[in-house]
Amino acid sequence: MGKVISLAHGDGGELSHRLIQDLFVKDFGHHKEAMFDASILDLHSNRIAVTTDSFVIKPIFFPGGTIGKLSVAGTVNDLAVSGAKPLYLTCGFVIEEGFPLSDLQIIVADMSKEAKKAGVSIIAGDTKVVERGGCDGVYINTTGIGLVENQKVMPAFQPGDAVIVSGTLGDHGLAILAARGELGIQIPVNSDCASLNAMLSDVTAAVDEVRIMRDPTRGGLATALVEIAEDFSLQIIIKESLIPIKSQVAGACDLLGFDPLYIANEGKAIIIVPDQSKEEVLRVLRTFAEGKDAECIGTIAQINCDAGRLLLETPLGTKRILTRLAGTMLPRIC
Amino acid sequence: MGKVISLAHGDGGELSHRLIQDLFVKDFGHHKEAMFDASILDLHSNRIAVTTDSFVIKPIFFPGGTIGKLSVAGTVNDLAVSGAKPLYLTCGFVIEEGFPLSDLQIIVADMSKEAKKAGVSIIAGDTKVVERGGCDGVYINTTGIGLVENQKVMPAFQPGDAVIVSGTLGDHGLAILAARGELGIQIPVNSDCASLNAMLSDVTAAVDEVRIMRDPTRGGLATALVEIAEDFSLQIIIKESLIPIKSQVAGACDLLGFDPLYIANEGKAIIIVPDQSKEEVLRVLRTFAEGKDAECIGTIAQINCDAGRLLLETPLGTKRILTRLAGTMLPRIC
Repeated sequence: MGKVISLAHGDGGELSHRLIQDLFVKDFGHHKEAMFDASILDLHSNRIAVTTDSFVIKPIFFPGGTIGKLSVAGTVNDLAVSGAKPLYLTCGFVIEEGFPLSDLQIIVADMSKEAKKAGVSIIAGDTKVVERGGCDGVYINTTGIGLVENQKVMPAFQPGDAVIVSGTLGDHGLAILAARGELGIQIPVNSDCASLNAMLSDVTAAVDEVRIMRDPTRGGLATALVEIAEDFSLQIIIKESLIPIKSQVAGACDLLGFDPLYIANEGKAIIIVPDQSKEEVLRVLRTFAEGKDAECIGTIAQINCDAGRLLLETPLGTKRILTRLAGTMLPRIC
Repeated sequence: MGKVISLAHGDGGELSHRLIQDLFVKDFGHHKEAMFDASILDLHSNRIAVTTDSFVIKPIFFPGGTIGKLSVAGTVNDLAVSGAKPLYLTCGFVIEEGFPLSDLQIIVADMSKEAKKAGVSIIAGDTKVVERGGCDGVYINTTGIGLVENQKVMPAFQPGDAVIVSGTLGDHGLAILAARGELGIQIPVNSDCASLNAMLSDVTAAVDEVRIMRDPTRGGLATALVEIAEDFSLQIIIKESLIPIKSQVAGACDLLGFDPLYIANEGKAIIIVPDQSKEEVLRVLRTFAEGKDAECIGTIAQINCDAGRLLLETPLGTKRILTRLAGTMLPRIC
């Protein structure tokens, strides 16, 4: 049997010290100040973006990623869709007593790899250990800090603005569901879990204005668009036939009774831009592996509506109203 | 039976939206951007301090505080001892399905109250709900951002520097242990859980130089001083007879076989200053309720040691070496 995490790894004493030195400092790099109570940072701007997210996904290892990769990419993406350049992450681990040290090493290595890829530094950390049964393996909180420099993302929506998604929808949620092994069917799809900051930075650089960007995670595409519609009093129309969905995802959703528009994604962005920038945005997106299936799926039909609304136009030309996700479809998806 | 948290409160849909609107936005104030992916902040300085901490304490309600108060004060203190002015907090909740909504309301109200008292804004949040048994009630991560302005805290230690503690030790750990009701004895002591930023800011303002400040949480006074000794190659000597400990805490520790020097505190600071500033620091500390029992407990005996070392001088004049906490004394104490 391999080494496991014990309560003493979390009590601030000798074993905590060794875990931090041997694992976190080794993998995350020796940002010496991260060992102290707070990390001191010198920024190049007075304007920063801050976001926080806790990751409780089950299972922690899945096709296309781990909770470690997800915890970095998820927070990087929240900063990137806000138009900020992600720079720093903190991470807080809550670990169950008895958790295999080898699994923790895989997770930390995966966080480190994704952080390097995304160009962010992990600058502060915390580890708590709870008794057996006190959590489900490991939970990770990451909080991200990004710089806001030349801000091109402004929600000055106009009728005719284009609604673009950066790729196929539903991959992450279906991959997680399949990895749980409770379905009785195989779904040959990987999670789309990926940091999108490089791609979104190129998109922003290529155009004069971006209305808004969002990452459709929990609640999926539909919930994210309903929120935009409500927050900015817009009528948004999307066309069902234009929405990119992998055939195996569409097939599994049909079979299982899920709607892919409500399934979580972890490597996709919604980008709304003036109509004249549409083709340029699609061109830039498709130069990235993460954006190769990007499509324009709809438009801003009206602005200044009394109540914001999202409409789905079916292949028959009828329109139906989409609301936010109500009730649980898939728990512990991120 | 009252309302409880369901999995649907955490899936990003309609119930999540209502929980955020009705509870968090109401109590934490309508920092509208906190509703979006990231909060944008304009700072008055390019130099910031960042810290993160997860709170998994059991029980979540205890004499002198709640997990909510603790999650604010703990992170505020990590910034304050770093010489930063705490300004912003993010909070990430992991909540167990079935958790009483009324308890969550108490916790959020307590966070809000402590944040106002400490002068910090909660600027971003996240809520995840895990299945029953997936966590133990509620865990809270807070990440704090503070400004570093005129930096007086510099670890330029000199022999004879004074080691000061801001009050009695062990109160928090003993209060938690008693609140668990597993001891068979009553210990009439409250947790010292408190935000110390106002007090530490006054201390810093009153003197020319502060060598270092630390909050002796997990691992207690001894572990925090061992870390300082090792990090800066110091020999530190503290005198047992000078260490302030409440009589009921000392008595309970004797009875239970605990060493109060290793017990967690949540409202105490270690402050090391040049010897000539000692009296002024004690005077300032004692003007605050949180600092009324402040004492100078020892000195920096040597600098540039080959190996840092903490020595405890007993009332008989003998000295013994204190090491960091090894093994678990009290789990789930913060």
